[in-house]
Amino acid sequence: MLIGGIEAGGTKFICGIGNEKGEILESISFPTEAPDLTLEKCIAFFKDKAVEAIGVGTFGPINLERDSSHYGFITTTPKEGWANFDFLGTLKKEFQIPMGWDTDVNAAALGESRWGAAKGLSSCIYFTIGTGIGMGALIEGNLIHGLVHPEAGHLSVRSHEKDDFRGICPFHGDCLEGMASGPAIEKRWNLKGYDIPKNHPAWDLEAYYISRAVTGAILMLSPKKIILGGGVMNQHHLFPMIRKQVQQELNQYINAEDIIFGIDDYIVPPGLGSRAGLCGALALGMDAIKNHMTFTE
Amino acid sequence: MLIGGIEAGGTKFICGIGNEKGEILESISFPTEAPDLTLEKCIAFFKDKAVEAIGVGTFGPINLERDSSHYGFITTTPKEGWANFDFLGTLKKEFQIPMGWDTDVNAAALGESRWGAAKGLSSCIYFTIGTGIGMGALIEGNLIHGLVHPEAGHLSVRSHEKDDFRGICPFHGDCLEGMASGPAIEKRWNLKGYDIPKNHPAWDLEAYYISRAVTGAILMLSPKKIILGGGVMNQHHLFPMIRKQVQQELNQYINAEDIIFGIDDYIVPPGLGSRAGLCGALALGMDAIKNHMTFTE
Repeated sequence: MLIGGIEAGGTKFICGIGNEKGEILESISFPTEAPDLTLEKCIAFFKDKAVEAIGVGTFGPINLERDSSHYGFITTTPKEGWANFDFLGTLKKEFQIPMGWDTDVNAAALGESRWGAAKGLSSCIYFTIGTGIGMGALIEGNLIHGLVHPEAGHLSVRSHEKDDFRGICPFHGDCLEGMASGPAIEKRWNLKGYDIPKNHPAWDLEAYYISRAVTGAILMLSPKKIILGGGVMNQHHLFPMIRKQVQQELNQYINAEDIIFGIDDYIVPPGLGSRAGLCGALALGMDAIKNHMTFTE
Repeated sequence: MLIGGIEAGGTKFICGIGNEKGEILESISFPTEAPDLTLEKCIAFFKDKAVEAIGVGTFGPINLERDSSHYGFITTTPKEGWANFDFLGTLKKEFQIPMGWDTDVNAAALGESRWGAAKGLSSCIYFTIGTGIGMGALIEGNLIHGLVHPEAGHLSVRSHEKDDFRGICPFHGDCLEGMASGPAIEKRWNLKGYDIPKNHPAWDLEAYYISRAVTGAILMLSPKKIILGGGVMNQHHLFPMIRKQVQQELNQYINAEDIIFGIDDYIVPPGLGSRAGLCGALALGMDAIKNHMTFTE
């Protein structure tokens, strides 16, 4: 079976073809431009590829209400041209096949639960920490949607006592994204992340803020695995710092072996590496076939 | 159909009998004593009542892993005698009927989604703010479990700039419960909550801390309704204060009509009033019958 996947980011798109084992057989990547132009490239890629379904994991916010007339739309993004764009409808005009649709981070959480670090688990959380910060969550086997979808990048976090930076979020100033995204690190230290040495205090602050979000996710959602991806997390020395900080903050209140004794296997990088998002899009496509069969039985 | 429900609190137990409409036909309440003694009273109440199932919504933490040998146990509570107590097993020795088992706050969320303020919705969150603070959550139609269950009472919250109180949580000091539970209010002001006048700054602080938790829940879980119950929320003048604060904190980032225009119907008291927990226990019992039939089909 061949399935198509689109990982739609604010900066670049990745389109790929894969199979039900999560193997990517072919993929291309191109910069995100105006929506019509960008979608044309997607359509050209999938044309004549005979995929049985397409899954889309995309930047947002997006409409996920199946009975809304705007299901499949990007909604209120400040990204020029993309607000109120009928993403899924544009694809459906070209391909009459089942389609999956979710946020990029929910897709990554799904991909990791299918083939990656959370394989076989009924719950996991995926944080991406890069240009922005986002969170996807699989809980009791389902991706979380509700009023909208999680927007945990904008969590309020308590500022570190040694940090007088005010943050860069245009909505909230010093929320998680305002304090700990890649651009926030760059603005605070006037250095690019990859130019900052490992023993620099920048990383203590970064581990502090990320651990606040991780601890919050544990207390709110109680996931069986926490996966941290995105450009900032390529700084692998952050992992042990975050794990230690999370243990200190929880202070053994959550009496779970995974946290107290097994935290090295509990807070982990993506098992699928940089393919988490695209594999997740494949998984969305596979699930769309399953749901389609259920609806038409 | 008659169903039994137990709302098991750290201070008192409520046992009730109800029907599939969520109507309570009979109930009793007694103080929580040693586990054997307390369960004896439950068993005596349900004896000869011919209930078809019993649902239990209980204080915790509890074991919810169906394939664990300790499923149905209270786990690590400091409450004397109750740690590692086989709650559900004790009931099952007496009654060979389907039994539901969850936290008191998850039960309340389920009850509210079945018959209360979140009726018909696929997601809602229930906070109880009283002697302790707890959160239950129904997401995509399922109550949240994972590594354990939500423990959102212990969320880290940013202290209010005018508040130098250090909190009373033995684990975390100034977490949500440490700063905003009933005993925290009492300790900070040296006054009982019900003795504090409505225009006292205590309520500004209280609304501030609760709104931090509500905002966190919106960003993490995106629920379709937020229900605030528990003794502290009997101070109904807190509701408009919390709603306003939540809107200010989110600053229109979550572009949802329910928050921007309809917040009076979004953050609400329990539709079932003080019966949310017991009705939720009934709903757990009803669902246990359904699951039992599915398993034995």
